[in-house]
Amino acid sequence: MTPPRTPDELHRFGYLGPRGTFTQMALDAWDAAAGREQVPFGSVDVALAALRAGEVDAAMVPIENSVEGGVSATLDALATGDPLVVIGEVLVPITFVLCARPGMPLGEVRTVGTHSHAWAQVRGWMAEHLPDAVYVPTLSTAASAAALGAPGDVMFDAGVCAPVAARDEGLEVLADDIGDNKAAVTRFVLVARPGTLPAPTGADKTTVVLFQKEDHAGGLLELLEQFAVRGVNMTRLESRPTGSAMGSYCFSIDFEGHVQDARVGETLMGLRRVCAEVRFLGSYPRADGGRPGARPGTTDADFDDARAWLDELRA
Amino acid sequence: MTPPRTPDELHRFGYLGPRGTFTQMALDAWDAAAGREQVPFGSVDVALAALRAGEVDAAMVPIENSVEGGVSATLDALATGDPLVVIGEVLVPITFVLCARPGMPLGEVRTVGTHSHAWAQVRGWMAEHLPDAVYVPTLSTAASAAALGAPGDVMFDAGVCAPVAARDEGLEVLADDIGDNKAAVTRFVLVARPGTLPAPTGADKTTVVLFQKEDHAGGLLELLEQFAVRGVNMTRLESRPTGSAMGSYCFSIDFEGHVQDARVGETLMGLRRVCAEVRFLGSYPRADGGRPGARPGTTDADFDDARAWLDELRA
Amino acid sequence: MTPPRTPDELHRFGYLGPRGTFTQMALDAWDAAAGREQVPFGSVDVALAALRAGEVDAAMVPIENSVEGGVSATLDALATGDPLVVIGEVLVPITFVLCARPGMPLGEVRTVGTHSHAWAQVRGWMAEHLPDAVYVPTLSTAASAAALGAPGDVMFDAGVCAPVAARDEGLEVLADDIGDNKAAVTRFVLVARPGTLPAPTGADKTTVVLFQKEDHAGGLLELLEQFAVRGVNMTRLESRPTGSAMGSYCFSIDFEGHVQDARVGETLMGLRRVCAEVRFLGSYPRADGGRPGARPGTTDADFDDARAWLDELRA
Amino acid sequence: MTPPRTPDELHRFGYLGPRGTFTQMALDAWDAAAGREQVPFGSVDVALAALRAGEVDAAMVPIENSVEGGVSATLDALATGDPLVVIGEVLVPITFVLCARPGMPLGEVRTVGTHSHAWAQVRGWMAEHLPDAVYVPTLSTAASAAALGAPGDVMFDAGVCAPVAARDEGLEVLADDIGDNKAAVTRFVLVARPGTLPAPTGADKTTVVLFQKEDHAGGLLELLEQFAVRGVNMTRLESRPTGSAMGSYCFSIDFEGHVQDARVGETLMGLRRVCAEVRFLGSYPRADGGRPGARPGTTDADFDDARAWLDELRA
Repeated sequence: MTPPRTPDELHRFGYLGPRGTFTQMALDAWDAAAGREQVPFGSVDVALAALRAGEVDAAMVPIENSVEGGVSATLDALATGDPLVVIGEVLVPITFVLCARPGMPLGEVRTVGTHSHAWAQVRGWMAEHLPDAVYVPTLSTAASAAALGAPGDVMFDAGVCAPVAARDEGLEVLADDIGDNKAAVTRFVLVARPGTLPAPTGADKTTVVLFQKEDHAGGLLELLEQFAVRGVNMTRLESRPTGSAMGSYCFSIDFEGHVQDARVGETLMGLRRVCAEVRFLGSYPRADGGRPGARPGTTDADFDDARAWLDELRA
Repeated sequence: MTPPRTPDELHRFGYLGPRGTFTQMALDAWDAAAGREQVPFGSVDVALAALRAGEVDAAMVPIENSVEGGVSATLDALATGDPLVVIGEVLVPITFVLCARPGMPLGEVRTVGTHSHAWAQVRGWMAEHLPDAVYVPTLSTAASAAALGAPGDVMFDAGVCAPVAARDEGLEVLADDIGDNKAAVTRFVLVARPGTLPAPTGADKTTVVLFQKEDHAGGLLELLEQFAVRGVNMTRLESRPTGSAMGSYCFSIDFEGHVQDARVGETLMGLRRVCAEVRFLGSYPRADGGRPGARPGTTDADFDDARAWLDELRA
Repeated sequence: MTPPRTPDELHRFGYLGPRGTFTQMALDAWDAAAGREQVPFGSVDVALAALRAGEVDAAMVPIENSVEGGVSATLDALATGDPLVVIGEVLVPITFVLCARPGMPLGEVRTVGTHSHAWAQVRGWMAEHLPDAVYVPTLSTAASAAALGAPGDVMFDAGVCAPVAARDEGLEVLADDIGDNKAAVTRFVLVARPGTLPAPTGADKTTVVLFQKEDHAGGLLELLEQFAVRGVNMTRLESRPTGSAMGSYCFSIDFEGHVQDARVGETLMGLRRVCAEVRFLGSYPRADGGRPGARPGTTDADFDDARAWLDELRA
Repeated sequence: MTPPRTPDELHRFGYLGPRGTFTQMALDAWDAAAGREQVPFGSVDVALAALRAGEVDAAMVPIENSVEGGVSATLDALATGDPLVVIGEVLVPITFVLCARPGMPLGEVRTVGTHSHAWAQVRGWMAEHLPDAVYVPTLSTAASAAALGAPGDVMFDAGVCAPVAARDEGLEVLADDIGDNKAAVTRFVLVARPGTLPAPTGADKTTVVLFQKEDHAGGLLELLEQFAVRGVNMTRLESRPTGSAMGSYCFSIDFEGHVQDARVGETLMGLRRVCAEVRFLGSYPRADGGRPGARPGTTDADFDDARAWLDELRA
C-alpha cells in the first residue's frame, strides 16, 4: 500500500470519538478534512491501529493539555509500533458545561459522569457548587452526554462535556464554562503514515522521541546540548517510562524548526549518533504560527556558508 | 496543630482506597503503619486534602508507574497547595488478574470493568484473548472487584484487579498475571506535612518541583547544569504543565542524596537562586537501597575541606 | 615575620627596574607608593624572590600586555613557589620613542637596542622607516636608554624606550610614538605576601591558577562551568605549561568579583573540589572601575536568601 | 605562483636560525628536508614573511615549549597576515650546555649570554652554581655560541646553548644538561602556504585560531561546547590578545583529528557559524603518533549513518 504523498491525498480521517468530543472540534478546524470521510474510533490506540492498517489516511488525536499534561496513550502509541508521523497540529480551547436531562435542577444532582481528564479540570467548580456529588467515570466526555441523551436508565444525574455535545444530545445546560482554568487548551495532532512530510513554512515544529544509549547520569544534559549548540529551541519535553524498568525513561520532545532546516538536520544527526534510537515523529506547521527568533549563526544561509568554507579547506 | 516530628509519631495513615488496591499493598509494606489506623480515601486529591487538614498524619499515594508513567493527580497535588513532603517510598510489583462472579466462563465475557491505568496495562492480553471485549471505566481496580462482589446488577461481566482484591471479594480468577509487562512496578510515596524529615541513611533520594523564572530557550539546560556541576544524579524528570498557558511547564525531579548532604544543599541553593520557585518535596530513604557512586570532589568531606580553605582565604 | 595587614602598612616597594621603565610608571600611578622607598630589581624573578624573603613589602610587575600577551615570567613566578597575592592593578598606556645620542641622524641608524617585547611592538614602524636596522636585545627598554646615556662604547646606534627614559638619560628623540598599536596598554599588578586582602569595592577582580586533577578531554569545560553556573565572568584565561610534560597545562584566570562575594566564594569552593590545586592569587579593585552587570540570582542577597531557605528546609 | 601541492614538492626549507639552534635539530628530524636547500632566518617573522613571499616552500619554527609555553612570535605571525598552514610537527628534547672559550674555568664566569627563553630554563642551575652571574640577552642560543666562537671581544664569559652549537663553534663545555626541567621538550611546526594538506593518517592534529563574535561572558564556554558535543578533544588552548584592547583575546587551539574527519568537519562548521572568524592553520600527523580513543558515535561511519538516516527522513 502506497501512502498518500500530500495532505490533499488524505481522504479518510479517523479521530478519537465519539462525535461531540473536543477531538471532533479539532478535526472540524482542519480545513483539508472538510467534506472528507470522518471515522470515529473508541480509543487513541484503536484509531492509530486503524491508521497503521491503512483503514484511514490520517487520525486526529489529543497529545497535550495545558492543564492535565501529556496524553499518555497518544505519546506511547506514537513512541512504539510501526512508525507514524505528525503532519499538523490544532489548538482547541477547552470549555466544559454541566448538562442533564431536561427538568433536572442543579440542586438535585447527586452523581456526575464524565471522562477522568475532564473531571480533573472541573474539581474546583464541583467543590464549590456540588461538594457532595459522586463522580462516575465514562469513556469520554461525549459518552456522558450520549448516555444522558439516550433513552433508558443512566448511572449519573448530570454530565460534563463540550457545549456542542450537550446541544447535539438535546440536554439542558445547568452551568456554563465550569472549567477551573479558563485558559485551558488542548493540543491535537493529525497523524499519518510516513511518506507525508509537510513542506517547511518558516514556522514549523518537529517532534521526536529519544531513547538513551544507557541510562547514565548527565545523559539528558548531553542530549539537550545537542539542541543548544545548534541554537534549536525545545517547546515541550516529557519523560516517559520505557516500560523496561523503573527509572528507565525515553524523552518525548517538540522543538522549533523543520527537518529540512539545516540546524534541525544537524541536531537530528547529532542525536542519532549519541542515542540508542531517535524516533522521528514529523515536522509540521505550528498552529500558533510563531516563528523562532533568529539566533545568529543558525540560519540555512549560515550553514551553507560554513559548508562552502569547509569544502574549500578540504579541497 | 503541631505536626508529628518523627515517623514513630504517625498514628493515622490515609491511602488511596478502597481496600484491595495496590496502594493498600504499599501501605502493608510500610512497617511503621502496621497496627496503626488506616483510612481509605476515594482519590489522591481527597487523601492529600485530609492530610493537609490534619485528619491523617500521612498518606500513601502512587506517584509513578514503570509502564504508565507519572501519576498526574499526585504530581499536581504535591506541586501546588499547602506544602507537603515525601517521607518514604515503596515499590510494588504490579500483577493483574481477570476475575468474574463464579460460573462465568472466559468465553462469555463481553464487557470488562477496571481503572483506565490498569486497562492500559492489559491491552495486549485483551487483544489476544478477548478482542471484542468492551471496556467500562471504574474508579479503581478494586472498585471493579467490589462491584462484582456486591449483590445486584453490575455493568460488566469481568474485572481486572489485584489478586488480593479478587480473593477478598470471593471472585473467580479467569486468568492470572495478565499484565503485558511482567516487570511492571508502581512506586508509591508516603506523604506527610512539613516538619517530618527522615534522617540521612547514605542511600537517599530528594524530590523537588522547579518553576522557571521565565520560559526561555535553554532554561532547562541551565537547571540541569545546577545538578551536574555538583555531581548530583537525577533519577526522574517529568515536565508538567503549570496550567497558565500551553507550553508553560514546571519540572518534577527526583535526585540522589539528602537535603543534609552538602552537594544537595548547594544544588538546592543554586536552583533557588535561578528559579522562580523551588518546591522542596522531601528527602527520604530509597526503596531500593541503592547508593550513588561517589564522584570525586562531591562528598561532605570535600565540601568541608573547600569551605575551610575558603574561610582561610577570606580571613 | 608578620606580613603587613593593610595597604597602608606597605613601606618598601620593589619593582621591575631599572628606573625609566614602564613598570616605574605603574608604580608612580600607585598613590600609596608615593614617598615610600622604591627598590628596582633586575628581573621579575628577583623582585618576587625579594618580596618572598621580606626584603620589600610589595612588588610592582607587568602581567599582561594588550599586544604581546601574558608576561610568562610573572605568571610562572606567581603560579609556583611560596604563595603571593595580587593586591592591586594598574593600566599603563604604552608609548615608545626611538632615541639616540645627540647628533645621530635617523638615516644613519644601523643597529637598534631594546627589550624583545618592545621590539615586537615596533616591528611595523621599523619595517617602514629602518628596514635594514639590526636588532640587539637588551634586558629592558630602560637598559637601552641607559647604555646610550652612559659614556663609552655601546653596541647599538639607537634605542627604543619610554619617553621618560630617553629624557632622563639626556638622549635625543628621533621619532615619537612609534608603537604599531596606538592603543597598546600594559597591565601591572602590585604583589604582596598573603595576609593583605583589599576590602571589596564592588568593582573587583580575582586571580587564580587552576591545576586539573588529570588532563582529560573536556576538563577545561568542566572548570568553566563552575564559573558559568554561578554567573561569574572571566576576563582573562591563559594556559601555561606545568612543565611536567608537553600537553600538560594549568590555567591562569582573572574573573570579576571579590573572594568575599558569595558567588565568588562558591565558585572557588567548587573549583577547589574538582581541581588538583587552586592557587588563589588575590582579590583587588579593578583599575578600570568597571562593575559587572548584576545577573539575576547571583548577588550576595540572593545567596543569603537561598542559605536561609535551605537552613529552614534542614531544620 | 602555484604552491607546491604535496610534501614531496617542497624544495626550499626556511628555519629559525642560525645554524646550531634547536630549530635546526627539528629540521634535521624532518626526513623530507634531507638533502634539500635549508635557509636560516633571523626571526620567526622574517622566516614566515619569506614563506609568504614564496622565497621558501616551507618553514620550521618553534610553537610551544613544555616549560616556557607558547612562542608568541609564531602564534601571532600565524594568526594574522596572509594565510599559512601547518603541515607537520616535530618534538625536540631540549638539552642545554654551559660553554666557553677553551681555558675559561667555571669559577671565573661572571657573565652569561643566551636567549631569554633559554635563560628562563636554567635559572635554577644558575642560582645554585653561578649565583652572581649577570645575564646578557642574545638573539638566540646559537648566537651566544657563535659570538664566543668568533674572534675578537665578546660581551660575556660563557654561553648557554644546544650541545651541537657548542661543538660546532669549538667551545669547551663547562657543564652538561643544565636545564632545570630534564623533560623539557619544544614543539616545532613545519609551515607552508595553503594548498598543502597532508592526507589523514588516523593520528592527526588540527590547529585553529578562533576570534569571538563579541567578547561576552560565557563566550569561551560556547566555543568549547562546539568541540565537546562532537567528541573532539583539545590538546592545547592558549588565549592571545587580539591587540585591539586590553581584555580582547583570540584563542589558539590544537585538537585531535583531521579536517577530513566528519566530526572535525562539523566542529569547524559549528565554530565558523558562531565565531567572527575561524582561521584554519592546518591538519597534520601527530609527532607522537597518538590516536584518540574512539568515543561512541563520533566515527566517520557514525556520521555517514546519521546522514543516510536524515536523507531518508527528508525524502
